Amino acid sequence: MSLAPVIDPKGMSNVRVHISSSLDGYVAGPNQSQEEPLGEGGEGLHDWLVELRAWREPQGLEGGAVNASTAVVAETFENVGAEIMGRGKFGPANRGPWGDDPWQGWWGDDPPFHKPVYVVTHYEREPLTLSDTTYTFVTDGIESALAQAREAAGDKDVFIGGGADLINQYLAAGLVDEIELHVVPILLGGGARLFDGVGQDVKLELLRVVEAPGVTHLKYRVVH
Amino acid sequence: MSLAPVIDPKGMSNVRVHISSSLDGYVAGPNQSQEEPLGEGGEGLHDWLVELRAWREPQGLEGGAVNASTAVVAETFENVGAEIMGRGKFGPANRGPWGDDPWQGWWGDDPPFHKPVYVVTHYEREPLTLSDTTYTFVTDGIESALAQAREAAGDKDVFIGGGADLINQYLAAGLVDEIELHVVPILLGGGARLFDGVGQDVKLELLRVVEAPGVTHLKYRVVH
Repeated sequence: MSLAPVIDPKGMSNVRVHISSSLDGYVAGPNQSQEEPLGEGGEGLHDWLVELRAWREPQGLEGGAVNASTAVVAETFENVGAEIMGRGKFGPANRGPWGDDPWQGWWGDDPPFHKPVYVVTHYEREPLTLSDTTYTFVTDGIESALAQAREAAGDKDVFIGGGADLINQYLAAGLVDEIELHVVPILLGGGARLFDGVGQDVKLELLRVVEAPGVTHLKYRVVH
Repeated sequence: MSLAPVIDPKGMSNVRVHISSSLDGYVAGPNQSQEEPLGEGGEGLHDWLVELRAWREPQGLEGGAVNASTAVVAETFENVGAEIMGRGKFGPANRGPWGDDPWQGWWGDDPPFHKPVYVVTHYEREPLTLSDTTYTFVTDGIESALAQAREAAGDKDVFIGGGADLINQYLAAGLVDEIELHVVPILLGGGARLFDGVGQDVKLELLRVVEAPGVTHLKYRVVH
């Protein structure tokens, strides 16, 4: 096991994915809704995370565990200059035009991103700035979103934050360099499935495994 | 990591599963056939295995690698007294009555099992003995097959050999004690999917991780 940064053979910043997955491959359970953003049973995907001090401290919460996941979580924040997310991560599943009183994201007035966020959507909308996070809404596709995020990130990496649909689109397009799965030993039986529709063309190479309480972190490089 | 045997709290023999899976959860690729028993791309699931001396030697083949997978493979043979398989593992996918010149299994006159094998099928057939392996065809369901296999295995464990459908049935029925996934860093994009239809009721606990060339072995206990 090594937590050393991956050498980037392209001399460009990396496009990185990391996401919690059930053992049956779902990153959200069935029937996602405003009440249950991660679907039925989906909260169980983050049990390993929310008990960590590394997660609690930035939210202003006391206490929390320090274990083998701590360094993994710290690493996920390191060297990330911009995030891209799908509309399904930004807001609840009822889609359509944004309307007069548009959704402001799940994260309140002081979002935890502290970096530019690009939201891929079919519906135009002006950028939204909350504290030090600006959400830019991108309607001309995933390649445009990546170009904008790369520009904003400079030398730093771009993080594809989910949901599954968006990650699968980036994987199928061959645009992801690194993917870390936080594999949680639960079955969700349905919902949003990672790798769905990606096909056989993506080749991966295991970089490292970290075994931690309630989760196994599997980090892969995508071989281009 | 420990390769020590799992203490069995029930005082009964264990029902064990181990199977190679793609990262997207398939244990065989799309379009399984007599020519491609593991479907399109499915042979890649066993690349890690067929290069091992531990696999080659029992087949009378020279050479082969010794690595971290060696002890894992040795363990899968230890203390197993009987195997249960679905008809889809025993023979090609064209189902129906056995006919006058019935399929004898993929493994020739000297099958590698060396123990009683129970084949779950909808179609009656007399037992078939080839060398020291007897195939018994069970038409009255998975619980009957397990009872017969347990009886034959005595103190030893019962191995559920696949395919995915059969394993999923045993998981859904709460009859599996231990499952080890040999996770291979390929995507198959379709085919026979492990855990499909099992639902959220199965709870698992990671027992150990073994990182090896071309594969990651994840072993779980099913919590009853």
